[in-house]
Amino acid sequence: MNTKPKTTNAATGRKGLPPMEESFPSSHKVYVDVEHGGFALRVPKRRIHLTGDSGHLDVYDTTGPQGHDVRMGLPKLRAPWIRKRLATSDGNVTQMHYARKGVVTEEMAFIAVREGCDPEFVRSEVARGRAVITANVNHPELEPMIIGRNFLVKINANIGNSAVSSSIEEEVEKLQWSVRWGSDTVMDLSTGADIHETREQILRNSPVPIGTVPIYQALEKVNGKIEELSLDLFLETLEEQCEQGVDYFTIHAGVLLRYVPMTAKRLTGIVSRGGAILAKWCLIHHEENFLYTGFERMCELLKRYDVTFSLGDGLRPGCIRDANDEAQLAELVTLGELTEIAWRHDVQVIIEGPGHVPMHKIKANVTLQLEACHEAPFYTLGPLTTDIAPGYDHITSAIGAAMIGWYGTAMLCYVTPKEHLGLPNADDVKEGVIAYKIAAHAADLAKGHAGAQAWDDALSKARFEFRWEDQFNLALDPTTARGYHDETLPAEGAKTAHFCSMCGPHFCSMKITEEVREYAATHGMTDEAALGAGMADKSREFVDTGAEIYREG
Amino acid sequence: MNTKPKTTNAATGRKGLPPMEESFPSSHKVYVDVEHGGFALRVPKRRIHLTGDSGHLDVYDTTGPQGHDVRMGLPKLRAPWIRKRLATSDGNVTQMHYARKGVVTEEMAFIAVREGCDPEFVRSEVARGRAVITANVNHPELEPMIIGRNFLVKINANIGNSAVSSSIEEEVEKLQWSVRWGSDTVMDLSTGADIHETREQILRNSPVPIGTVPIYQALEKVNGKIEELSLDLFLETLEEQCEQGVDYFTIHAGVLLRYVPMTAKRLTGIVSRGGAILAKWCLIHHEENFLYTGFERMCELLKRYDVTFSLGDGLRPGCIRDANDEAQLAELVTLGELTEIAWRHDVQVIIEGPGHVPMHKIKANVTLQLEACHEAPFYTLGPLTTDIAPGYDHITSAIGAAMIGWYGTAMLCYVTPKEHLGLPNADDVKEGVIAYKIAAHAADLAKGHAGAQAWDDALSKARFEFRWEDQFNLALDPTTARGYHDETLPAEGAKTAHFCSMCGPHFCSMKITEEVREYAATHGMTDEAALGAGMADKSREFVDTGAEIYREG
Repeated sequence: MNTKPKTTNAATGRKGLPPMEESFPSSHKVYVDVEHGGFALRVPKRRIHLTGDSGHLDVYDTTGPQGHDVRMGLPKLRAPWIRKRLATSDGNVTQMHYARKGVVTEEMAFIAVREGCDPEFVRSEVARGRAVITANVNHPELEPMIIGRNFLVKINANIGNSAVSSSIEEEVEKLQWSVRWGSDTVMDLSTGADIHETREQILRNSPVPIGTVPIYQALEKVNGKIEELSLDLFLETLEEQCEQGVDYFTIHAGVLLRYVPMTAKRLTGIVSRGGAILAKWCLIHHEENFLYTGFERMCELLKRYDVTFSLGDGLRPGCIRDANDEAQLAELVTLGELTEIAWRHDVQVIIEGPGHVPMHKIKANVTLQLEACHEAPFYTLGPLTTDIAPGYDHITSAIGAAMIGWYGTAMLCYVTPKEHLGLPNADDVKEGVIAYKIAAHAADLAKGHAGAQAWDDALSKARFEFRWEDQFNLALDPTTARGYHDETLPAEGAKTAHFCSMCGPHFCSMKITEEVREYAATHGMTDEAALGAGMADKSREFVDTGAEIYREG
Repeated sequence: MNTKPKTTNAATGRKGLPPMEESFPSSHKVYVDVEHGGFALRVPKRRIHLTGDSGHLDVYDTTGPQGHDVRMGLPKLRAPWIRKRLATSDGNVTQMHYARKGVVTEEMAFIAVREGCDPEFVRSEVARGRAVITANVNHPELEPMIIGRNFLVKINANIGNSAVSSSIEEEVEKLQWSVRWGSDTVMDLSTGADIHETREQILRNSPVPIGTVPIYQALEKVNGKIEELSLDLFLETLEEQCEQGVDYFTIHAGVLLRYVPMTAKRLTGIVSRGGAILAKWCLIHHEENFLYTGFERMCELLKRYDVTFSLGDGLRPGCIRDANDEAQLAELVTLGELTEIAWRHDVQVIIEGPGHVPMHKIKANVTLQLEACHEAPFYTLGPLTTDIAPGYDHITSAIGAAMIGWYGTAMLCYVTPKEHLGLPNADDVKEGVIAYKIAAHAADLAKGHAGAQAWDDALSKARFEFRWEDQFNLALDPTTARGYHDETLPAEGAKTAHFCSMCGPHFCSMKITEEVREYAATHGMTDEAALGAGMADKSREFVDTGAEIYREG
């Protein structure tokens, strides 16, 4: 029996999302209040209450305000900050523009609390382009967050319908479900009907930045005729999405005409949808990619809304065999050139990365990206470290994601178990998000993030002290942890027991260790000399003080 | 809806294992026949038949003979080989002993075919101690395999009941289920009732090496009274298990008295069951660990059966905080000393490793192990790269396992989703095995194994060519891959369609790429010069030859 609670059930129909308290028992949201620029900022955290006198642990929280009517959308947290800034704006409203002028924005102050660092450090990283704050002035609902390798590693979840599947309601539910489990940003990759209205509903209900791939909508506007795509039509599409409040755009401006033939000898060609569309456009017209030639015009537009470029890797490898090939690396160099252009406009940039990469080629990817793109934040899909496990690509890619996060990637785009097979449903979204929270957290630990280590310590301490409830509640997914435990030892008493079904009461190493440790500590046995030949008395003493092997209870 | 087929169902009771054909459609077992020493060896592979004229792919196969009555056990494949060798034996029957005398055994010849290498290479690696062939002369049912870092990375699955859970039948079923999905060895960690009979049933039905932790049974013999454990009692237990045919023993001989206090300041103390038992024994008696002082007597015994030492890391870290600490590394050095002693007796050795290790400390573990233990094969549990995800520790640990495999670990001990929470059932066993097959295969790829790459290429080629059935059948778990696909596009026609539910027919990058690629190839566009200014004619040509954007079908 698989005891994981299921969110959706194809047999019985949708039943909606459970409330926060059900997903995170013994947690509640708390706010850190700080003042900045005359505004009272309320920075959310999730507080996990522990049993007895073990206190609590506060963790980063992406869930946003709860209990709002989806039709009304979330409260517009940033509206007054933005209004004040626009009153004196020079027309460029990007966080990078303010950062370079030495201004610490409300967003930066908010982020400093979230990340536990100095606001001035946030400002300097944004000014340098090494971090981005993706926050369109028309998306006031979002709680500011930062993407950069000197901050916590972030994750993105992709949602969105296609021509053959899913509805607006389902997509909003996937959004809410993905932020529930920790998505830091969400990309709406819809290509089906109602593309504008789907995005509107998502934006108005999203406490996290929303990214899109505008070429999808542009292509819908020309009824799928790639040859009819043009820069003007594309800019019109961008403006529509800028107005709605999209926070970052994937733009495949690095797919140059001369790179396309490099993909001819590949095993799996071009696997990026946007990349394939632009490659075909280039071939049909035998002209340079209009996203490349028109790049400055996009900069002019984006800086008026503070939309971040996510420079797409249209030529990323789609299989292990094609990893780190000529086409991929040529495009990366071009993305670096485009980064410099965007930065001249103070427009923020992140760089998208692969894809499918075997472990021994991952580090080279990051090193090349940092160098070619002047340390603009890297944002990678996985990478998948093998191709042979469709149905488990959240795992094949979590391996690569953890490693690339450690090496310096700022944000990891999740992969769900359905990758290569179908569109993820809500359960798949959760599986993907949890796998990527694991990867991101493992990367934070490997990078020596102090706050990350505290979470592991709290859980391990609870485990060692047989505080089962705390162990469940500190888990990334408390209900699954509890469900698995209860499968073999369902009784309530088992949750205070000093053993579990794995070893039973007679073979519990933690139980034995408690005794060993107590003895060693109270008898000063940390001194090696004390363990010498004349220690027979200690032996007697240990037995005398009641060292029965197991105290069952 | 989760469409993964469930093996067991707690509500309706056990329903047994599905046949091979159901787990691996379009596969069947084939045998490579080779002659060695007058014997006809039949080396198994699994042949995956592809559609059309795509041929087939042969993959390493661990499943063993099928369809045998569990009460009768498997055929005794190795019995004649062993009988012949015993006729002229000098009393030491280890593969290392033969290897050092220059003899290529039947086991080595068999393995050479399995691994695709020269039998002489197998012999030399075994002679050097850099690889082991764990094959007790009393376990003639096993199909020989090798553990060493110059061969395919192997995985182990732990099964076994405890005082509070499970039956003999269930354990044999878990054995069969774990080899079905690719376990290379299985450890029986039973601590409950019927420990001898459970092991007997497992051995007689196992085509893979079986490992145990004999201290568990020894402790049962003294009714759980650790202080009553002794070398003689332990040797008696070993002999009983040697006679039964156990292939490798975890022996915690490196838990020295003086190391125990080093664990006092740990967050989670000693988490190895065996380690905790020995630590307590040392403290109670204030004597050195009898497994250490009596190590040569064990060597004398093991060489008569060819049982391999798996030197246990009784002081492995149980949480991220405790990784690579003094206690762990001190024990590792002792395991290196014991390796030298065992090798003097031509007894084979593998070294067990952690546990819980953050990514940035994994490489140091392998480097230290190779150096301290003279390149004896490393056999690691995970390692888990974070503590915060109980319920998902197959993922937290697959990350560490893939990395440590790449760095040189020869065998990876799996972790199931139930780790820290309960005993795995058959579904958990499968989840754990698949996660570890992924990790091992990713490591093989990163190490540049040619055979490993061929599998990825075959699957990616099938994916690119929209051979859906082949893509499913080449997957590590075909039924799950197919189930996920069918959730959104269940019709049979969808399995020949040139798109899937992820993008729909209009946005399929692979479909567009096919067109791009065909065009580039047929028009000689691999030459960069050909892409110059005078290419407008090519544009016309592309449109003229019927470049409608999508051919729906």
